[in-house]
Amino acid sequence: MADSDWGALAQHWLDRLAACSEPGPGVTRLPFTPEHRAALGVLTELMEQAGLTVGLDAAGTLIGRLDGPVGAPVLLLGSHQDSVREGGAYDGIMGVVLPVLALMKLRQDAVTLPFAVEVLAFADEEGVRFPTALMGPRALAGTFDMAALELRDRDGITLRRAMQAFGLNPDALPGLQRDPAQVMGWVEIHLEQGPVLEAAGTTIGIVTGICGIERHMVTLTGKAAHAGTVPMNLRRDALAGAAELTLAAETLARETEGLLATGGVLKVRPGVVNAVSGEVAMTLEIRAPDDALREKAGAALTRSAHDIAKRRGLGLDISRTYAQPATPCSPQVIECLSKAVEAGNRPAVQRMASGATHDTSAMAGLCPVGMLFTACRDGASHHPDEKVPKAAMSSGILTLERFLTQFQ
Amino acid sequence: MADSDWGALAQHWLDRLAACSEPGPGVTRLPFTPEHRAALGVLTELMEQAGLTVGLDAAGTLIGRLDGPVGAPVLLLGSHQDSVREGGAYDGIMGVVLPVLALMKLRQDAVTLPFAVEVLAFADEEGVRFPTALMGPRALAGTFDMAALELRDRDGITLRRAMQAFGLNPDALPGLQRDPAQVMGWVEIHLEQGPVLEAAGTTIGIVTGICGIERHMVTLTGKAAHAGTVPMNLRRDALAGAAELTLAAETLARETEGLLATGGVLKVRPGVVNAVSGEVAMTLEIRAPDDALREKAGAALTRSAHDIAKRRGLGLDISRTYAQPATPCSPQVIECLSKAVEAGNRPAVQRMASGATHDTSAMAGLCPVGMLFTACRDGASHHPDEKVPKAAMSSGILTLERFLTQFQ
Repeated sequence: MADSDWGALAQHWLDRLAACSEPGPGVTRLPFTPEHRAALGVLTELMEQAGLTVGLDAAGTLIGRLDGPVGAPVLLLGSHQDSVREGGAYDGIMGVVLPVLALMKLRQDAVTLPFAVEVLAFADEEGVRFPTALMGPRALAGTFDMAALELRDRDGITLRRAMQAFGLNPDALPGLQRDPAQVMGWVEIHLEQGPVLEAAGTTIGIVTGICGIERHMVTLTGKAAHAGTVPMNLRRDALAGAAELTLAAETLARETEGLLATGGVLKVRPGVVNAVSGEVAMTLEIRAPDDALREKAGAALTRSAHDIAKRRGLGLDISRTYAQPATPCSPQVIECLSKAVEAGNRPAVQRMASGATHDTSAMAGLCPVGMLFTACRDGASHHPDEKVPKAAMSSGILTLERFLTQFQ
Repeated sequence: MADSDWGALAQHWLDRLAACSEPGPGVTRLPFTPEHRAALGVLTELMEQAGLTVGLDAAGTLIGRLDGPVGAPVLLLGSHQDSVREGGAYDGIMGVVLPVLALMKLRQDAVTLPFAVEVLAFADEEGVRFPTALMGPRALAGTFDMAALELRDRDGITLRRAMQAFGLNPDALPGLQRDPAQVMGWVEIHLEQGPVLEAAGTTIGIVTGICGIERHMVTLTGKAAHAGTVPMNLRRDALAGAAELTLAAETLARETEGLLATGGVLKVRPGVVNAVSGEVAMTLEIRAPDDALREKAGAALTRSAHDIAKRRGLGLDISRTYAQPATPCSPQVIECLSKAVEAGNRPAVQRMASGATHDTSAMAGLCPVGMLFTACRDGASHHPDEKVPKAAMSSGILTLERFLTQFQ
């Protein structure tokens, strides 16, 4: 089989998996549902074709295992099986299919590894059905909070009940925790969900770490007024203040390497054509691979908000509502992944931070982690238009194969 | 009666009129309703106390007339009786009460005028009940569009039916048109609805004209994206573009004498904390007493929008959805009002444009017009907190009295 055929084979399996979906546009496959069950059937068939031993753990994680020498440690690969509602056919699930195909190719190439490999298909990374996520990797890392089992989906079904109905025993979750000494590392391959690799004309990128995130809720209070009766110099216009803060965030991020800042929500009151705005509620989100950089940016934008409010005579309420630290990838894993990419004669290796959270974030609680990104068409993700070119999937499979043969 | 008592007397009548309201906060008095009928009863009582002959015309305008010499022309004074929903006790209705009290005072002072005076209480200036307004003054000016009679309120009742149920004959409206040769002018006194007079420490202002208004609907289309996966330099952020345009409008107006510019509506899609905005729909409103200035500002902001969109790679749809020319006040009326204000030993006469539309806008189609503003507390209007200090109402009454004795 030609190297370039591997991407087509991946596409074949991803097409079959995309059919494991609720009706409607794109893919909707939530955890512990008939669609999840159907996907596990397809993945089991694929894993068995690759010579893996397949099992389902108590968290609903499908595990395809290639044994190594007796007593050898295990390298973990994988991603999640679930999608968002009306999402795409690649997010998560491609990160299960490609490593299995890499192992299939290794087997065809008659390569034997000095360690065991497991490919994991976690049940729930997107957190769409229940107000929690990442149970599978957290169970392995011993960081899962059993209280989350009582959270309910929109039909009122608890996570515990949904798992039981799926044939799982939630009380066995604590027993899933792995011994770090027996785990060499975790590598996830995922579509980029952004435009960087496509813009760079390359197919594979190395993730240096997963950005930390903080979110701020900002309320600016001015004085609602008739747009005809209050001169410009007597206005206290909340929207103009919010516009300034939005641009301050954008400017700071543009001028700071690695920083992302986004104004996403902006709600204006009264929000009518002939009124000066009395109140704006807005959000600012900041992401950076370096926590100190992010914290500094958060403090700078908070100062900007105070400056703007003071200068404009606006009331200000600003609070950080969410903060999640960054997850650096293992330098050793990065190095080995880079060699595997370079060996494929790819253009200069693109290293980049992941702005989005992944299963890798939780796996970092267990072992050294690494991630590969594949290019995706037009940066689209979480959308039926989501597409990873076959060439990028071929690259991914071959890169993973090389990585497996070189990792120590 | 001491000069300062006239404000208290005005307050007494305005309190009675404020009771002519739907239940709830503030004043809600819509045209052709039982509340309108009750207010006409109170106004009739007041007008008759002032010695006026009272009648109701076919547009529902209550007219209190002081006859002049046979064949003498008439000077028209007044404002509107209606309020917005949950509005205040002064907007409009104060402009009926104060001129009647000025005529009452003239009578007490035994002054006879060489012309007739009519005080008009128009039915509907706010346009809250029906999607039209200013029927009363338009009927006098001969600019009323009879098609508006078929417009419906939210209960499905046409303006025609509502007027008929109120005892009026809408088919008689064309007959209300006045002969301009018989009308000397129109003067309206109204609360400022803004903070300028209060900030200047004065009670009465002279309106030089009513601003023209234009409104623009702007849609900026970027690319919605995950706030973590798209680097700053590859974003097409519609909200950041909208923020820039909002500030461009504010800056232009701050730097241009007499210009007001307001971003009032701003709707963001998708409008979630972790997404770069794909689309913003916003409005820009521009007001100026000079039409050429306003048109120039509208063109400048349209250019700014194009510049911003081009620089940011955003789609742009911008259209002027509304334009209303300015109404200049008559220099002769302004001059006479100014002398009347100065004679009251007021501080330097404050001249100002009206940013809001008034009955005066429509009366300008008939005759020379002028307007006085009274100070109001904290700029509040269209709100239960609306308040005109008694001292400002006294000033208004005495100013109107002097004006009446001096106008030719």
